[in-house]
Amino acid sequence: MAHLGARMVHIGPGRVHVVLPVRPEVSQQHGYVHAGATSAIADSAGGYAALTLFDEDSDVLTVEYKINLLAPAAGDRLEAIGTVLKSGRTLTVCQLEVFGVRADGERKIVANGQQTLIRLNRAPG
Amino acid sequence: MAHLGARMVHIGPGRVHVVLPVRPEVSQQHGYVHAGATSAIADSAGGYAALTLFDEDSDVLTVEYKINLLAPAAGDRLEAIGTVLKSGRTLTVCQLEVFGVRADGERKIVANGQQTLIRLNRAPG
Amino acid sequence: MAHLGARMVHIGPGRVHVVLPVRPEVSQQHGYVHAGATSAIADSAGGYAALTLFDEDSDVLTVEYKINLLAPAAGDRLEAIGTVLKSGRTLTVCQLEVFGVRADGERKIVANGQQTLIRLNRAPG
Amino acid sequence: MAHLGARMVHIGPGRVHVVLPVRPEVSQQHGYVHAGATSAIADSAGGYAALTLFDEDSDVLTVEYKINLLAPAAGDRLEAIGTVLKSGRTLTVCQLEVFGVRADGERKIVANGQQTLIRLNRAPG
Repeated sequence: MAHLGARMVHIGPGRVHVVLPVRPEVSQQHGYVHAGATSAIADSAGGYAALTLFDEDSDVLTVEYKINLLAPAAGDRLEAIGTVLKSGRTLTVCQLEVFGVRADGERKIVANGQQTLIRLNRAPG
Repeated sequence: MAHLGARMVHIGPGRVHVVLPVRPEVSQQHGYVHAGATSAIADSAGGYAALTLFDEDSDVLTVEYKINLLAPAAGDRLEAIGTVLKSGRTLTVCQLEVFGVRADGERKIVANGQQTLIRLNRAPG
Repeated sequence: MAHLGARMVHIGPGRVHVVLPVRPEVSQQHGYVHAGATSAIADSAGGYAALTLFDEDSDVLTVEYKINLLAPAAGDRLEAIGTVLKSGRTLTVCQLEVFGVRADGERKIVANGQQTLIRLNRAPG
Repeated sequence: MAHLGARMVHIGPGRVHVVLPVRPEVSQQHGYVHAGATSAIADSAGGYAALTLFDEDSDVLTVEYKINLLAPAAGDRLEAIGTVLKSGRTLTVCQLEVFGVRADGERKIVANGQQTLIRLNRAPG
């Protein structure tokens, strides 16, 4: 996330928003954000959303995700929202949404996905 | 791809290999390559593999993909292989594989996925 | 759908509900509806939802779908809801949800998925 | 599987083949096997493939799968092949392939997918 320039802007139980300012480095030849960057912030938002429902000794790893790129990822920033659909003892399933947001606040969905994560016990430090 | 430091190392009809040297910038807290970077090179390999079967006026966009992260993406470099499973007039479906490769050549699969792309006519320049 | 015993119970623009009464033939050894039947009604609900936004000369085919089976598919009936997320000229993307519904009306989500469909021109009869 | 008329025809370590004779009940308006039936035998083949690598006290449940329907599922029978890509202590990932097979033996791939399963301890009888 840091490498991409993304940051968390909202954390609530089972829901996290991650924002990525659109810069040339994350854009591709068509002028919109590369699928890889779009997916990366969606994956991160889902992972953090899963973590909000576990204690601090837990960590999560992405098992798999699927994402549909619905529209060119354009705007001044991308906002990824991860929402927990099911939080189990071992597995968590999240919905992933990514919106392109313009400076005037207009939002348009650019990607929608679904993610499975596994809970791990964080190794003692 | 350039932003990540990835490059194409093999191009054949319906199959492309992309290599990403493992550097700190693409790694995460667990010491292995972030799912976002792993997915990005897999997505790129599939997209280029699809393009090998079309004429130069065609372009492709990723419609969707799904990826399973099978093992920590460790090694000196990651190698993503995109292979066309079905090349249709409108849609192409690719298999995506990502291997972690050590300096001594040992390879281990780290991710496996599947991708759908749509063919577009490249806008005249 | 007919083979499974499923039927449409709601049709609106971009949204269709399909209901499957739970019978022994569609259940598996654990006592809940088989993933295949759960997926089949989800796929059907999405396909019909896509069709609601096209004229009568259009047909759709499922390109791909992904489904997470979140909980045992139990209840007196399953209700699948297909909702169009993006309706394009060629491709439609739907969200798929399946709920287990008890005779007393209690609902529980049992599956969540995402589907891509392609529009075809219906062959003249 | 019994309801559909499918049966296992090959079992090896990490790989299972399931065959479904094509009958009107599993076909749809376009004259080929419904996506639901195609998916169901793919899901079953993957589940049984996963089981071949565990002892008899283990059972598996499908966590999720994604399938691309590549071509009309035509032929005299469908053959689904489930192959384990990664067998872990908790999770198993399988590749799913479905072929349409004609009476003269000609085979054509009709679907390709990927599946995640979770291992459970079978309840003592």
